[in-house]
Amino acid sequence: MQIEFWLEFASTYSYLSALRLPTQTAKAGVSVRWRPFLLGPIFAAQGWNTSPFNIYAAKGTYMWRDMERRADKLGLGFQRPEPFPQNSLLAARVAQAAPEGQEMIAFCHNVYLAQFSEKLDISDPNVIAACAASAGLDAKLLDQAQTKDNKLALRASTEEAIRQGIFGAPSFVVGDALFWGDDRLEDALDWAVQHG
Amino acid sequence: MQIEFWLEFASTYSYLSALRLPTQTAKAGVSVRWRPFLLGPIFAAQGWNTSPFNIYAAKGTYMWRDMERRADKLGLGFQRPEPFPQNSLLAARVAQAAPEGQEMIAFCHNVYLAQFSEKLDISDPNVIAACAASAGLDAKLLDQAQTKDNKLALRASTEEAIRQGIFGAPSFVVGDALFWGDDRLEDALDWAVQHG
Repeated sequence: MQIEFWLEFASTYSYLSALRLPTQTAKAGVSVRWRPFLLGPIFAAQGWNTSPFNIYAAKGTYMWRDMERRADKLGLGFQRPEPFPQNSLLAARVAQAAPEGQEMIAFCHNVYLAQFSEKLDISDPNVIAACAASAGLDAKLLDQAQTKDNKLALRASTEEAIRQGIFGAPSFVVGDALFWGDDRLEDALDWAVQHG
Repeated sequence: MQIEFWLEFASTYSYLSALRLPTQTAKAGVSVRWRPFLLGPIFAAQGWNTSPFNIYAAKGTYMWRDMERRADKLGLGFQRPEPFPQNSLLAARVAQAAPEGQEMIAFCHNVYLAQFSEKLDISDPNVIAACAASAGLDAKLLDQAQTKDNKLALRASTEEAIRQGIFGAPSFVVGDALFWGDDRLEDALDWAVQHG
């Protein structure tokens, strides 16, 4: 069975899942569809105008420490982006516009690494253009990302996420089963194998 | 090194950790101190008058489904308590008053099983008395739990939790390192072994 990986580019724990997903899914023999979406509208509907990690100080302090430890365990670099959360709209639009495949996945990896390992600002069109180019994506995609159709497609994805009960990122959807958080990636893969 | 297990009796995921803790800590060769505390005052300070799982509907819906799956994986019964969250004050006071040891741990297990497996109301003094009796705790403890000194000791524990940066349950503290959530139990044990 296929799993859907719902990713928000500004999300810290989505970084961990995005980077370890290809190895884990290959091991489990499960295929993945990468589904960019935006958490902003979902948070706004809960009355939050920023990340809950900014609103709830103790939870935020914990998350930064936890991310350092988890990234270290996975051998990934980690720096705290400034500002946090980053504006991920452009990255999400480019990922939405990209055809599914290795280049799209490489682009996602590049954006996460730029943001969380190199501390670059992913709202900067030059950063996103470099991420796309080094992933082997066509430069035309940056224009396609800004078309009305593509903007609507990303909005429709976010609405689909809400319909599926998604409230945070990363989330994994396997059939009608939802799994939330990097710590549930293995459960989602097990589920896909057992219900495949 | 010792780990401190900070538990809130009304917390769903604390149930999972409490029940699997003795096996996991024995395997790792790590000793544990069980630290009952109350999340209510911590939530209240964040502006919440109930569990965030009640306030944020999508998150709550997910949690109940996730708990079913996790309990099933661990071979534990699971029923949704009504009301949720339960009033855990009496259980916490008894656990606070109990001397450290196997009986106190058995009492904690009994309370979690009564609540989440048998769907009993843990604010009912008869339920708590039965949990204490079957754990081998002295019946006098139920009176000691209601003394001013013991009430203050529980309040001091909750204040200590806040000072340690605790914002949810279960939490694990190893030296000055905090780990939050049942999914971080293994990380906490690894940390205790490596920094022991």
